Amino acid sequence: MSVIPNVLAERYASAAMKSIWSAEGRIILEREFWIAVMKAQKDLGLDIPDGVIEAYERVKDQVNLPSIDARERVTRHDVKARIEEFCELAGCEHIHKGMTSRDLTENVEQLQIWKSMQIIRDKAVAVLNRMSALAEQWKHVTIAGRTHNVAAQTTTMGKRVAMFGEDIVHGLGAWISLMDRYSVRGLKGAVGTQLDQLSLFGQDAVRVLELEDRVCAHLGIPAKWMNVGQVYPRSLDFSVVSGLVELTSGCSSFAKTLRLMAGHELATEGFAKGQTGSSAMPHKMNARSCERVNGFHVILKGFLMMISGLAGDQWNEGDVSCSVVRRVVMPDSFYAADGLFETFLTVLNQMGVYEAVVAAELRRYLPFLMTTTILMEAVKRGIGRETAHEVIKEHAVAVSNDLRAGKIMENNLLDRLAEDGRLGIDRADLQRIFDSNSSATGMADAQVEAFRSMVKEVTDRFPDGAGYQPGDIL
Amino acid sequence: MSVIPNVLAERYASAAMKSIWSAEGRIILEREFWIAVMKAQKDLGLDIPDGVIEAYERVKDQVNLPSIDARERVTRHDVKARIEEFCELAGCEHIHKGMTSRDLTENVEQLQIWKSMQIIRDKAVAVLNRMSALAEQWKHVTIAGRTHNVAAQTTTMGKRVAMFGEDIVHGLGAWISLMDRYSVRGLKGAVGTQLDQLSLFGQDAVRVLELEDRVCAHLGIPAKWMNVGQVYPRSLDFSVVSGLVELTSGCSSFAKTLRLMAGHELATEGFAKGQTGSSAMPHKMNARSCERVNGFHVILKGFLMMISGLAGDQWNEGDVSCSVVRRVVMPDSFYAADGLFETFLTVLNQMGVYEAVVAAELRRYLPFLMTTTILMEAVKRGIGRETAHEVIKEHAVAVSNDLRAGKIMENNLLDRLAEDGRLGIDRADLQRIFDSNSSATGMADAQVEAFRSMVKEVTDRFPDGAGYQPGDIL
Amino acid sequence: MSVIPNVLAERYASAAMKSIWSAEGRIILEREFWIAVMKAQKDLGLDIPDGVIEAYERVKDQVNLPSIDARERVTRHDVKARIEEFCELAGCEHIHKGMTSRDLTENVEQLQIWKSMQIIRDKAVAVLNRMSALAEQWKHVTIAGRTHNVAAQTTTMGKRVAMFGEDIVHGLGAWISLMDRYSVRGLKGAVGTQLDQLSLFGQDAVRVLELEDRVCAHLGIPAKWMNVGQVYPRSLDFSVVSGLVELTSGCSSFAKTLRLMAGHELATEGFAKGQTGSSAMPHKMNARSCERVNGFHVILKGFLMMISGLAGDQWNEGDVSCSVVRRVVMPDSFYAADGLFETFLTVLNQMGVYEAVVAAELRRYLPFLMTTTILMEAVKRGIGRETAHEVIKEHAVAVSNDLRAGKIMENNLLDRLAEDGRLGIDRADLQRIFDSNSSATGMADAQVEAFRSMVKEVTDRFPDGAGYQPGDIL
Amino acid sequence: MSVIPNVLAERYASAAMKSIWSAEGRIILEREFWIAVMKAQKDLGLDIPDGVIEAYERVKDQVNLPSIDARERVTRHDVKARIEEFCELAGCEHIHKGMTSRDLTENVEQLQIWKSMQIIRDKAVAVLNRMSALAEQWKHVTIAGRTHNVAAQTTTMGKRVAMFGEDIVHGLGAWISLMDRYSVRGLKGAVGTQLDQLSLFGQDAVRVLELEDRVCAHLGIPAKWMNVGQVYPRSLDFSVVSGLVELTSGCSSFAKTLRLMAGHELATEGFAKGQTGSSAMPHKMNARSCERVNGFHVILKGFLMMISGLAGDQWNEGDVSCSVVRRVVMPDSFYAADGLFETFLTVLNQMGVYEAVVAAELRRYLPFLMTTTILMEAVKRGIGRETAHEVIKEHAVAVSNDLRAGKIMENNLLDRLAEDGRLGIDRADLQRIFDSNSSATGMADAQVEAFRSMVKEVTDRFPDGAGYQPGDIL
Repeated sequence: MSVIPNVLAERYASAAMKSIWSAEGRIILEREFWIAVMKAQKDLGLDIPDGVIEAYERVKDQVNLPSIDARERVTRHDVKARIEEFCELAGCEHIHKGMTSRDLTENVEQLQIWKSMQIIRDKAVAVLNRMSALAEQWKHVTIAGRTHNVAAQTTTMGKRVAMFGEDIVHGLGAWISLMDRYSVRGLKGAVGTQLDQLSLFGQDAVRVLELEDRVCAHLGIPAKWMNVGQVYPRSLDFSVVSGLVELTSGCSSFAKTLRLMAGHELATEGFAKGQTGSSAMPHKMNARSCERVNGFHVILKGFLMMISGLAGDQWNEGDVSCSVVRRVVMPDSFYAADGLFETFLTVLNQMGVYEAVVAAELRRYLPFLMTTTILMEAVKRGIGRETAHEVIKEHAVAVSNDLRAGKIMENNLLDRLAEDGRLGIDRADLQRIFDSNSSATGMADAQVEAFRSMVKEVTDRFPDGAGYQPGDIL
Repeated sequence: MSVIPNVLAERYASAAMKSIWSAEGRIILEREFWIAVMKAQKDLGLDIPDGVIEAYERVKDQVNLPSIDARERVTRHDVKARIEEFCELAGCEHIHKGMTSRDLTENVEQLQIWKSMQIIRDKAVAVLNRMSALAEQWKHVTIAGRTHNVAAQTTTMGKRVAMFGEDIVHGLGAWISLMDRYSVRGLKGAVGTQLDQLSLFGQDAVRVLELEDRVCAHLGIPAKWMNVGQVYPRSLDFSVVSGLVELTSGCSSFAKTLRLMAGHELATEGFAKGQTGSSAMPHKMNARSCERVNGFHVILKGFLMMISGLAGDQWNEGDVSCSVVRRVVMPDSFYAADGLFETFLTVLNQMGVYEAVVAAELRRYLPFLMTTTILMEAVKRGIGRETAHEVIKEHAVAVSNDLRAGKIMENNLLDRLAEDGRLGIDRADLQRIFDSNSSATGMADAQVEAFRSMVKEVTDRFPDGAGYQPGDIL
Repeated sequence: MSVIPNVLAERYASAAMKSIWSAEGRIILEREFWIAVMKAQKDLGLDIPDGVIEAYERVKDQVNLPSIDARERVTRHDVKARIEEFCELAGCEHIHKGMTSRDLTENVEQLQIWKSMQIIRDKAVAVLNRMSALAEQWKHVTIAGRTHNVAAQTTTMGKRVAMFGEDIVHGLGAWISLMDRYSVRGLKGAVGTQLDQLSLFGQDAVRVLELEDRVCAHLGIPAKWMNVGQVYPRSLDFSVVSGLVELTSGCSSFAKTLRLMAGHELATEGFAKGQTGSSAMPHKMNARSCERVNGFHVILKGFLMMISGLAGDQWNEGDVSCSVVRRVVMPDSFYAADGLFETFLTVLNQMGVYEAVVAAELRRYLPFLMTTTILMEAVKRGIGRETAHEVIKEHAVAVSNDLRAGKIMENNLLDRLAEDGRLGIDRADLQRIFDSNSSATGMADAQVEAFRSMVKEVTDRFPDGAGYQPGDIL
Repeated sequence: MSVIPNVLAERYASAAMKSIWSAEGRIILEREFWIAVMKAQKDLGLDIPDGVIEAYERVKDQVNLPSIDARERVTRHDVKARIEEFCELAGCEHIHKGMTSRDLTENVEQLQIWKSMQIIRDKAVAVLNRMSALAEQWKHVTIAGRTHNVAAQTTTMGKRVAMFGEDIVHGLGAWISLMDRYSVRGLKGAVGTQLDQLSLFGQDAVRVLELEDRVCAHLGIPAKWMNVGQVYPRSLDFSVVSGLVELTSGCSSFAKTLRLMAGHELATEGFAKGQTGSSAMPHKMNARSCERVNGFHVILKGFLMMISGLAGDQWNEGDVSCSVVRRVVMPDSFYAADGLFETFLTVLNQMGVYEAVVAAELRRYLPFLMTTTILMEAVKRGIGRETAHEVIKEHAVAVSNDLRAGKIMENNLLDRLAEDGRLGIDRADLQRIFDSNSSATGMADAQVEAFRSMVKEVTDRFPDGAGYQPGDIL
């Protein structure tokens, strides 16, 4: 039997994301970390014989996973197994001095998280960049805006894109703010007091802090915890997964709306050459990628609940009841988010709007969509707002029922309103209101512009992200 | 870069569970399913040329995952890719007749779930069998029962085991009841009407139902849905994961209590020869397996939330927004539950109670633990219940405070109560009450017996499960 | 400032459900429980003076909540406060003998849960009864079945109702099975050993068990725990809330589908006289009740998460970290489920199908919906399944694109297929296939019948539930 | 039957929090909002007759909830009911012009949220202020730090407080950052295009934006959305509840640790005069408030799950499937968080450490706690790290087992190590190491200072919060 693969990694995630979390990648990150600690310890006066660091460096890329696994089956301690393996390869015992397991694992896992956060940030920027272009492209495509899934008022397709886009702008703001606060645990020792490094350095606190700073510089994470136990607070992991849920909510809402639009044939997420919609029904062109985006969002929420089981549950200075949970949640949340962005970027690249269908839908509903305008006009003419509302509702409901019953084929709301004296607007006036407002979309254009400005700020700041293109998806 | 493994499968799950969900295993289950359908179709009169079924059977074990993946990258449809692969291997196109993708995938996935449910049931039986033995072994070990994590009244270690055990008995009852109701989707076609099989069989409903019954018999799942869409209701998947959470709750509570007991040195989950407790602190003997059991339970709750995102969210006759979610949740929930049981069984096999520490703790608290008895005796002597409660509380709190302040070294509650006339029980009487009740554990023994009877019923019914022994754990 | 109401109770729940969980109702249930215990204790020989029970019975309905609250502010112990209040009213101190707080509260709360479970069961029966009628009513209304929210194959509206209905049938089966297993804690004492009752009854185990049986008979809950600590396992509460989620999933899916159908004007949840769809847009007729049903389902899932935080988290013999959680989750889950059923029953009573719109939609898609049939026919004529699939897909996608682009107004798929020699079916044949299958809905009718039979079994068993009618909803 | 109260509000929340969310309070906030809109509309040139605004202002505090409810039963539209009520009271129809319901409700609910966020922020500051004082008070109380719930190394009680405190510092940082980003929806109209205000103001975009800015200034929320639909993205609500979970995680972890410490009699959360620990067991002094803090945290996680059901689920421009969910989640999350802080502040005010018990525990474990130091010293003397680790582990495990078996009464690890030549440290040296390190707590003091500096920054910025004292709790 071959290895059971991680389906999120192997089926959906990008190579860049996988390389951060692969077993080999992690072993090497750990060894580099141990070497960085040794170098700093030696520089700061600890007696590490010459040649030792070089001995470790020479073998750091020799990763033999089965050998490490075999050791763990004896020690029942994963870090101890990896210490033994690395020391035997190098032929000496100088790593991990003054360190407890968590001095290694917490920092290296935070490095993996940190690198993943950068990837996700860049993909969110790419999403916004693409949505900004789409908002511009469709800013004059008037559509029937819907609330309660029912036609409500006109808006534009560009504005609809901007609406979901601004959700993502907010999510990205939160994400960047989280990255600014993201703090690394550092070399805090078994219960967080840095006791063992202090012993090693003969109670010299200055050198102990300097050691930690050098090690943190190696990691590249800007902020640092001062008071921790054996572990950093799991509320930090919680905030990362929560940030992923927030950041991808706008994508999920847009995907869901595209699924609705596809059901009305108003839009498509694209349909590739050679693609099969259904193994049974050859005519099917399904919004499967959008469905997948929604699926990923469900997954992220599940992982959020998982990680929330750790937040606020620290016993004393900590333990490893979090271990198996974090082994699942942390990489898999990033794989899922990465897969979501790859899929969503593909949708944004390939989606289309069927303008003829959009126009036909608009024709059917336009008199309804204009009822708020007619209501406003009636109010301007001195009719009480609630009275006008009642009159219009009466006729609109009747028209709607007649259309649905097949009694009439065209929406004749204007005629009926013209004939009802209570509203106080005659036929000519109504027609004039209709004509001058039928393409009215309020401030939609200006709003699209505002969205594009927000995006420009982001793409200017993160140009690499802006240019990112997704890989092929399944 | 090697394949990213599924950490739950590769690190914690048993070989039996992995083989059900492996990619190769699934491909073969699917091909066997297609063959079973063809056989039934042919038997029932469908024109499938001689030799065709044999052609498929000959190649059914030739699983080439990369080739299938390559096909999927073109079709973007996983089932279509697997149809093409199997047909090309066999050299003909006769599988999947009258079927839609879900006729294949839903049934095969249900088969995987069904087989996994049996494994889990058997391991739960093994857990109960072991707990029954432990309850018997420790039925005369009197301990200080705790509520609010504070000594409350005496109980026995055997009763404590039985208490958590009966939680699992209930969970297993629910699990078995779920298995009794578990229904397979069957061959319902694209939107659930069985239209295409009916077309294939010239509108002959009798043969269509017979076909479905034969196919269900192949699967071995007793119950069947009558009305479904393209998919069976995801509330069924929800009920499976929910059942896992319920079934493992007693294990999690017991593990948590063992962690607490280990903190008081009252018990140990065992500590293997060669095991390292901490890479930094050589003296550590940690309840790491119990912590892991708790971690698995957190994971299962997260998966429950994930799958709950699908329940009650069916659009019309269904779609694949559930696809990526179920690819993660269904196997991984079973891997997690399987890992939990493997770990918990190991704990049950290796755990120990430190009876000397238990006895010392009891000495410290015994006068407190007996306050309810003294209260009862005072009530019998005609003192108002609330009055007696107040008097005892006053002295107990004082003794407790003095002990904690180091003012006294021995619990002298009896002396103080004897000197307080309000309680109406003299020194001799108190001593007599103390002596005759100091080993009182109420109905604990009878309760243990009741638990053992419940377990016996279960082990008699599932003797294979009862004898199961866990593999080695990390 | 007036009392902040429980919005789920006051805005959505029925009077019957509220009366179970009201503060006054609970106080009275508790007092009745204490009296039942005293009566049994007296019958079994405990020395309770004549007149005492009568003294308590006389005052049991005198519920003064502010007085109880004032006591709790002193004792910081809610049960102690209620003991004091009841004793002062009665003028004696004879309740709660041999009992700990949980002997009272666990049992009474289980009684509240049990009564609520009956209400929910009956409403689910009412839902099924109504859905059975609707399935019959619409069994000949052919609709375009949808998968991926896109027209797929024909089915009937009756079958669609039956499909969601059978989900509820399964949920109800699980619910009834849970009720059969639902076990009451009984009089187990402070740590579950029944020590204090045993003391009271001079170590006479027979009378202690008899006492418990009488008390359980008072509650009316059939099954009983043997081994508990201070609390019954919270996995039981979990199973109740999980059962609510499962039971209501079918309702939620149907409501979601109705929202989709309303968006296509295919159906309506009903629109009452006087109702306002939107304060701004007079024409709006929104599926607001269906939206609410979906909202309730989201709420139930959240409560499931909440209660899952207690399952598997028992420390030793228990504590009250569950207290505030259960005060919220248990009543509120039932209020939410009750509100969901009231709303959903109203929808079922008032919903309608716009058959003219249904027919128009079907005309547009019918040639597509028949592609599986044409595929089957081609296979029967000896064309390879995958070849036929490709040919049909090619033309279907082209027709679809032309329709969406406004290039054609009528679906001309049959013409195109007739002209393509690869399929091997001529024009006349195709037309014949079309004509003889255009109203084909497979086994939909028989499936509806099967659903109605399942429902009949349920309504025969629970005739009271079957006849339930919802109250007015907001 | 009296009104069913909201248990979180009435039992646990502060008056300040309740007043924000009460029904009356909300009605008045809405009316003030309508008036603010009218004023701005009139100032900007809309024809609102003189005296009208005054008419509304005169009646704005006349809140008649039953009358509003009666109206809603007719309209089935809550906002319409409140419009009618307010207009009838004022005797005119001029409010809500150009507005849709959500123009009212979204903004007013955001105002409620905003005010609640300020309260929570201030209480978090108060918590930190108190924890800073406790960290200082106990900075020289050396305790046995624990990992895996087992004694690991020495730390100080002050450091332990600082450790949980810094978790809260981070959570507060996130909370403040969220408040900085928190954006109000504004007057965006039915589908977000501001169409109706634009109609009202004769297509004058400048006045429409000015109107919105004035209205936002009335609310006092600094940031504003530009692109929304009928609703603002529910990811914003999600981020608020997620922020509450994060912010309270440190409190929950500290509370859990206090429960553990209480189990060892190392600390108490306080025990008020008159308080009853158990209705059955008079000696009980339970960490019930800490348990409650943990319960609140579980509740908040459940509400997070609930609200996560809305994020990423927007259909088109929005609907009210979120309505019932937000009616529960938004106020109740704040009530729960408020109750958590009130409870936790009370614990911080009343908790105590039993220093004699702390010292006794330390004596038992000290030789173990020093094993990392001995390991370091051995390494300094040239013994291989892994060799030294193995030697120490061998003896430590033996000592531990002998202590637990009652074979020895004193921890004699030093003697055993002195006798084992492999370690290369003689008796005198070991004793010297022991003596000079027995009170070593690493950098604990400096870490406490660092924590106090962080807190000082916060209390300087929010002095009102710093001084907040909790009300009485149940």
